[in-house]
Formats: sequence, C-alpha cells, structure tokens
Amino acid sequence: MTTPFSYLTHLECSHCRQNFEANRVQTFCPACQTPLLACYDWHAAAACLHRDQFQTRRKGMWRWHELLPVQDEAHIVTLGEGDTPILPLPRLGEDFGLERLYLKDESLNPTGTFKARGLSAAVSRARELGVRRLTIPTAGNAGGALAAYAARAGIPAQVFMPADTPSANIEESRIVGAQVTLVEGLISDAARLSVEAARQNGALDVSTFKEPYRMEGKKTMGYEIAEAFGWHLPDVIVYPAGGGMGLAAIWKAFGELRRLGWLEDEHLPRMVAVQASGCAPVVAAFEKRAATCEFWQNAQTHASGLRVPKSFGDRLILQTLYESNGLAVAVSDEEIQQAQQQLARREGVFAAPEGAANVAALHRLRERNWLTPAESVLLLNTGTGLKYLR
Amino acid sequence: MTTPFSYLTHLECSHCRQNFEANRVQTFCPACQTPLLACYDWHAAAACLHRDQFQTRRKGMWRWHELLPVQDEAHIVTLGEGDTPILPLPRLGEDFGLERLYLKDESLNPTGTFKARGLSAAVSRARELGVRRLTIPTAGNAGGALAAYAARAGIPAQVFMPADTPSANIEESRIVGAQVTLVEGLISDAARLSVEAARQNGALDVSTFKEPYRMEGKKTMGYEIAEAFGWHLPDVIVYPAGGGMGLAAIWKAFGELRRLGWLEDEHLPRMVAVQASGCAPVVAAFEKRAATCEFWQNAQTHASGLRVPKSFGDRLILQTLYESNGLAVAVSDEEIQQAQQQLARREGVFAAPEGAANVAALHRLRERNWLTPAESVLLLNTGTGLKYLR
Repeated sequence: MTTPFSYLTHLECSHCRQNFEANRVQTFCPACQTPLLACYDWHAAAACLHRDQFQTRRKGMWRWHELLPVQDEAHIVTLGEGDTPILPLPRLGEDFGLERLYLKDESLNPTGTFKARGLSAAVSRARELGVRRLTIPTAGNAGGALAAYAARAGIPAQVFMPADTPSANIEESRIVGAQVTLVEGLISDAARLSVEAARQNGALDVSTFKEPYRMEGKKTMGYEIAEAFGWHLPDVIVYPAGGGMGLAAIWKAFGELRRLGWLEDEHLPRMVAVQASGCAPVVAAFEKRAATCEFWQNAQTHASGLRVPKSFGDRLILQTLYESNGLAVAVSDEEIQQAQQQLARREGVFAAPEGAANVAALHRLRERNWLTPAESVLLLNTGTGLKYLR
Repeated sequence: MTTPFSYLTHLECSHCRQNFEANRVQTFCPACQTPLLACYDWHAAAACLHRDQFQTRRKGMWRWHELLPVQDEAHIVTLGEGDTPILPLPRLGEDFGLERLYLKDESLNPTGTFKARGLSAAVSRARELGVRRLTIPTAGNAGGALAAYAARAGIPAQVFMPADTPSANIEESRIVGAQVTLVEGLISDAARLSVEAARQNGALDVSTFKEPYRMEGKKTMGYEIAEAFGWHLPDVIVYPAGGGMGLAAIWKAFGELRRLGWLEDEHLPRMVAVQASGCAPVVAAFEKRAATCEFWQNAQTHASGLRVPKSFGDRLILQTLYESNGLAVAVSDEEIQQAQQQLARREGVFAAPEGAANVAALHRLRERNWLTPAESVLLLNTGTGLKYLR
C-alpha cells in the first residue's frame, strides 16, 4: 500500500462541527462565522507513519507533508520555512530564576517572521486549488510573507495594511511585486478593504483564520517543539497573541500528536497569551472567562503585530487558554522595550517587540509565582527586530 | 575507541606552511602576513566518520563539530546558525535560460546574514581559549554578528564600522550591547582602529582572515552544499566577494571532503567571485592573473559588504578562482538594483545587494557563454535585504 502525500480528508467548522469539502476553495463557516479546521485520516496516519521518520528528511516544515493539506508535492511553494532553532537561554533564565528557559526563534524564517509558515501553506494550497489572485489584510509581517510566497508562485497579490505599519513591511511587500494599499486605520479597517477587493477581483482573501490552511502551516511549530523536546512537551509555552493563530495552531498540533500516539505522556503545556496593554482583548475576555472577545477600542501599541482589536479566531484562542490551564497577560510598551534590550544583551537575540513581550510577561508570571524555578518554559520569538527600525 | 569532539590538530600558514599551535590564541602568520588555516587529523577522521551520520543530528552548523575547531561542546556559542535552505529558482532560471539554477539563502541565519557562521565559530573558540574581550572592523554585517555572539557568550565587544554603514548594522550591534565606534572612512580605516583597540585593551581582533576560526564556520556552507547535492557538487558557484572569506572557505571545505573521500566524484565547481564595479580589486587582479590584489582607491558601492578595498585573504581568494577555473566579474550598482528586483519579483526572495549582485553577474556569464543551459549553478545570497532599507 502506498501512503498518500497528505492524509487531509475534509474541513470542519470549529464551532458547529459541520463538515466542508476540502477539494475546493473554502473560507470560514458561513453559519457560525468561525474558522474551519483541517481534518486528516488520523487512523490511517497513525497506522502508517512513525514519528522518527520525519527526522531524516530534508529540513523545513514540509517534511511533515502527510499532516499538511497539500495533495501534490509539485504545488508546494517554499522559501525554506520552518525548523527554526530552539535555544536554551541560560543567562536570561538566571535573571528570572528559571532553570529551563528556552526560545524558539522564528525570526530565522523567510521574510524574518513566523508568518512564513502560514503563508507557505496557504499559498501552496491556493495554487493547488487554482486560485488566481490573493489579497490579505495585515498588521505588517503577514503581508510581507504573503507577498513573497505569491511572487514565488507567480500569483498576483494585494496587501492592505495600516499606513503607520513599520516601513520595512511596506518595502518588503513592494519589492516582491505586491500591490500595497495603505489604509488609514487598523487591521480591522484593512480587513474590510481586503474582503471588498477579493470580491471585486475574484481573489481569495487569506486573512488570519478566514482561510483554513495558514493554521496548518503554523501548527508545524508544535510538531517541531514536540520533536525537539523528545516528544515530552515543555511545561509552559509563552506566545504573543495578535491574531493569535499561532497559539491555537500549536495547540491543534499537540492534539494531533496525542491522537497519533506520538507523545511520551499525557502532559500538555499551559499556554500563555501575551498582549500589549494598549490592545488586550484576549486578556479582557480571559479575565471574565468569556468565550469570545469584544472589539478593543482605540488599539495602540508599538508592537504592531499585537495591534489586533479582535481576532476572527478569538474563540479558539480562549479555548486554548482554558483547556490548557493557561493565562493571558498584558504588558506595556515600556516593559516590552526594556525586555527587548534585556533579551538582546543577555542572549544576543534582537527580537521583534512582539517576541520581546514574552520576556516582559515572564516578569509578571514570576511575580505571581505562576512559574516555578524547575519548570521548562518555552518562549516564541515571532520575528526579527530588524523590521521595526526607524 | 571514543572519537574526539573535534579532529583539530594545528594551524598552518596558508603561504609558507609553517605550523602553529592551535591550543593558544593565534592570529595570522607574522612572517608572511597571511591567514592561518585550521588543520585536522584527516586520516583519523576518514577512518571514524561517515558522511551520512551528520544528517540525523540536530540541525545547524555544529552538527559538523568533528570537522570544526571547538574541543569541548560546552564552549559552543550558538544562535542556531547554519543549515540554510537551497532553493531551486525555476522562474529566474527561465529568464536566463538555465535549467538548474539554485540559491542558497544565507539570510535565514541569526542576524540575517552568512556572517553568523564565522562569528559563531570565532566567538566559541575565543571563549574556549579564554579570550576576555573582542574587537572587529566591519563593513556592516560582521559587526552585527560579532556583537550578537559576544552578547550570547557574555564577552564585551567593540565594533568599528564606517559612519555610512547601513543604520540597521549600527542598531543591531548597539542593542545587544556592543560598543560601536563609527569611523570616517572605509573598513580599511576601521581595521587600523580595531587593531589599536585590541592592543590597548588586550582584546582579540577577529578581523576577516586575521583570525583563523571564522573561516571554519564559513566552510560549513560547503559541507551543506555537498550534502544537499548528494555529494556531487554543482558545476558553478557564484559568490559575492567583499572580504571573500566565504569563497575561500567553501573551497577549503571541498578540499576537505575530497580528502575524506566523501565526494561521489572528482568534479569540483568553477568558483565565481562577484564584485561591485566601484570596488573590484579581485577582478582587477584576476584579469592580470596576479597572485595578490592591489588596494582599490576610492572604493564606492551601495552594496556595503562589497566595499572592501583589499582583503587580507586576497591570495586565497585568487587561488580559489585559478584552481577552480573560475572567474571574477564586476557589476554596477544599477545592475545590482535591477537584479535585486528581478530576484524579488520572480522568486520572492528579498536579497541583500551583495546577494543580488550574483544575479547581475549571471547576465554577464550568459552573454559570454561561460555558462551552458544544462549546467547546475548555485548562487549564494549572503544576507537579507531588510538591513539595507533607508
């Protein structure tokens, strides 16, 4: 029996569980207005695949192709994303009294951020399904990533971003040939224009959570973490949540690994969402134990990727926090800036402000005694600080 | 018998072949004023190591540790460098009528450039040998890399760079805590100040080719290329030569692989050095079949990494070109800029101008019929374009 290139079977609404056909272009559940999740034949996958076989394949996220949505290898659009390093942080750990502190450095991706994973998956699948044009609303880095992968695929792309997005995001999108529209307002305003452009031009809008395959790319962070930790997951994962898809995607990955029987034990990490105090809808909802977020008015933060007033996947983010016994924490821009310097000076990593926010959050978590010294704690740095220089 | 962590034996002058002890701090040959090369026990290494055993190790350049200089794993200073992707460039290949065109994208390294490899090796070895302070003269990216690795190691660092170096290089060096001195002039002027500071402060000057271990880090590009191409090397490798160490280091790696008997055949690539027409000492020397370069007066180019009037390793660079039946080519800043856009739009890679210079050089090589359509051609992109934004 030959094993398929992908075990993808169908899509499922994350709320009402209605099934959707995977072999045509899908967006989100029209009834619930919630994201669709990609489903796989886990029974067959568990029978045919072994967790160790992925290790010897060529590096990059596509070595997990059986658990990703693309059906035909020829459709993969890659720039070498994935398999970013996991670095021990002994000196920063000392500062916080944490013996096992780690950083997964997603800045070592194409376009310098974790957004590469999601857009590699989305653009690959879009090409496979015959999509001729792509649009995206973005707080910055996702736009740069879409633009790059669309160029690589030869598919025209339109990027909508706030006019005050870091200029590196504007430049990187333009140089690869995307049509960039600067929007007075926030990503929520850009989102409306992206939907409208998609409708007018027959394009696919690959907005966070409104397209089901970006999440599949992002979940490979979870696979890599499990593999790197010997299939015994860390105690705590700290993640900066703007759109929050990475957080939900890593959680999805852990669920999948459990179904596959690849984890050494039943131990799952407590997931922490970090937001900026000037835009903290997830923190506000979490503190009320709400199922969804309210739109955050007058969102403001220099960590542009965290300037997302309401995520389309808010329900999934909050579920992740509740199910994992996690937490949501807000930190100020001043704390982020100090933390960025602390991480840089102590460990040599020049992180994006979103990534540095995790270090700021560590202060809070230690103050509250929410972390104990011997727990293993993994921070995600979502991107390079180079993109935020003035 | 246990295998050693490293097979390093001694250092050797690249010119007079005199031997130098490896277990103390060394710089260059005082008699010849030429670089020292790291030597290994190739006999033992060939007997004990197998080329396939490196594939299953954790990703990154240190998986080749037996062939690198660090003696004790605990001294390795890593930020996850190495194992950058090799991407086929089908659309750009079409533009040039080349069927097998590839890019090794070194921008997916810590600090966004290939400099990470060399400085990871140099700082690790400096720590191992008890060095307490580091200095470097730089055209830009090497300074950022030294600063990051020194921070990670907890070793103070001083960086000397031209005042008109791209601001990203200045900022990335400062945020990780290096002491940055801006110099009116070129890297050659910065070099004098770095030597002087090293003398005054008892620091080690890790200037290109004046310290023997940066080259060892860089040579891992050659190992990765050989492995990725199934130990059958490409026909042509195109490399932007400022200091030119990467070019010589890749050539050193191929020689080592040949000694180890790991290559499938005797076929070695023709090595091409690309320079900017405003600073082309290697091209000038190559055209005269000279053994060394003359200092290039009034060096000027926007590709700051190529603004090196005379490399301390000029002899090794030229040897590489002659031995490999290679070539040296100069391209203008206008051609570089156009090539940067072509690579970005066709393949989605936003390369540094130095990396884009290779694409500009392809035009020349095809015009001259120096390349035939079926030859496999590998371009090195040395860094990310993000660092050059104004």
